[in-house]
Amino acid sequence: MVIEDLYPSRTQATARWIDRQDPVVYAKDKRTDALTREQIDSFERDGFLIINSVFSQEEIDQYNEEFERLGNDPILSAKQEFIKEPESRTVRSIFAAHKFSDKYKALTNDPRIKDKVEYLLDDKTYVHQARINAKPGFKGKEFYWHSDFETWHVEDGMPRMRAISCLITMTENKSYNGSLMLIPGSHKRFVSCIGETPEEHYKDSLRKQEYGVPDQESLIKCYNENGIVVAECPPGSLILFDCNTLHGSNGNITPLPRRNIFFVLNAESNRLEQPFGGTKPRPDFIGHR
Amino acid sequence: MVIEDLYPSRTQATARWIDRQDPVVYAKDKRTDALTREQIDSFERDGFLIINSVFSQEEIDQYNEEFERLGNDPILSAKQEFIKEPESRTVRSIFAAHKFSDKYKALTNDPRIKDKVEYLLDDKTYVHQARINAKPGFKGKEFYWHSDFETWHVEDGMPRMRAISCLITMTENKSYNGSLMLIPGSHKRFVSCIGETPEEHYKDSLRKQEYGVPDQESLIKCYNENGIVVAECPPGSLILFDCNTLHGSNGNITPLPRRNIFFVLNAESNRLEQPFGGTKPRPDFIGHR
Repeated sequence: MVIEDLYPSRTQATARWIDRQDPVVYAKDKRTDALTREQIDSFERDGFLIINSVFSQEEIDQYNEEFERLGNDPILSAKQEFIKEPESRTVRSIFAAHKFSDKYKALTNDPRIKDKVEYLLDDKTYVHQARINAKPGFKGKEFYWHSDFETWHVEDGMPRMRAISCLITMTENKSYNGSLMLIPGSHKRFVSCIGETPEEHYKDSLRKQEYGVPDQESLIKCYNENGIVVAECPPGSLILFDCNTLHGSNGNITPLPRRNIFFVLNAESNRLEQPFGGTKPRPDFIGHR
Repeated sequence: MVIEDLYPSRTQATARWIDRQDPVVYAKDKRTDALTREQIDSFERDGFLIINSVFSQEEIDQYNEEFERLGNDPILSAKQEFIKEPESRTVRSIFAAHKFSDKYKALTNDPRIKDKVEYLLDDKTYVHQARINAKPGFKGKEFYWHSDFETWHVEDGMPRMRAISCLITMTENKSYNGSLMLIPGSHKRFVSCIGETPEEHYKDSLRKQEYGVPDQESLIKCYNENGIVVAECPPGSLILFDCNTLHGSNGNITPLPRRNIFFVLNAESNRLEQPFGGTKPRPDFIGHR
């Protein structure tokens, strides 16, 4: 059986723009208590939604304690799921945190998140990827612009745009401490990236992106159309963003760490196939199958 | 003659805080048309002042054209005054730009700047250092926290805190494109830094700061007291800041370059002596004598 590739990328020497072939909001005419009409429309238009203070400070304190516990565990932190900063070797990300912690596992099933996402995707969901992104103060590194879907499609075999990233802020996300930046409206087209993927690319890409990043001309065009939104919000906020929304973050020299819990809920109907880039699938802790 | 060092730094293995021994506003009771009372008080309290749209877009366009002309000149851009980005070799700064360009030279004498500074310092002034800081889009690097005075005192021999940095914005300075960040109130004490200065330190420090930077504990304390102000402002704005105000900037992955003209006016009565750190003076293009 030949599976059609609706979103080819890293196959050509020049960048291309491909119109989105999938809905953004799958269940738009259904009634729901999970989101307001304004929130649904805003997610559809911008490709993301920021909801302040969904979780209490007490809950967030517990998630932070759990992070310290995991990061300080010498046996756990030597595992491949624990990614270090390029220079300082501080823990930058913990992948599959929900497999090491019941507390994080419960969060991936929390109805305050899941009901919203399952409404938008109009399907049952499962965790495609989960991690904690702990950008430390003073030395936190930037994360360059990308569409998550581009990587998940090419390197993991996610067929369609029917997944939503969920981000829960564990510290203040200020304009100045390397907060998430999003390009509104960028989810409506697919920027096909230049170049081929090396084998075992994930080993480097989790620390520093080099392949599967949009070309500068496309980024300038997207920026000129809709600008950039910096997702400033207090601890305990929820940011939902479409799998194809272009995003990135600057480094952080401030004393304030910027730590977020991040997980991706993918529609059951959108389960992974073989990677469209032709490489072998990435390990399970990066793309659960 | 033994000259007393009021602000010793890089002489001990631990950081120390020393109260400022000098006024911030030298001419505070004199009448002036250069600044309002509110502006003067705000400069004294915060250690900086941001005044939007002092220069017209037409003037700023001319300064940008001049920058392109200088940066694209193959003979000029090979000079030591032209500093490149650590990785990309793009021009990051042009030092002593007023010596290569009549247009920039005129700006260092512009009464819209000079009258304000000479009021605050209550003295005639001269250009201690001048540069254009062109933080490019996509790959602009961070500049770590520092007090300019610390460096000018230790490495150039500036005796007292009686100099003001003048920054004129040549592009939009947004929260997300690596704009200047300042810690309000930090000018009121001197953070004595750890460690010794290597000879010819300036060759590396202009590209990446390693010595003469405050310790993390002091930065956390300053931040907890007064937070951080990101100097967001449109092109043509003027930012004046005291020589001892702690400042820095994050990197810039956005498509929008963040380009500023920067020069320092030092009081005539505060002319350079021998460097207090005991090294030989830095070259003239970094600290004019």
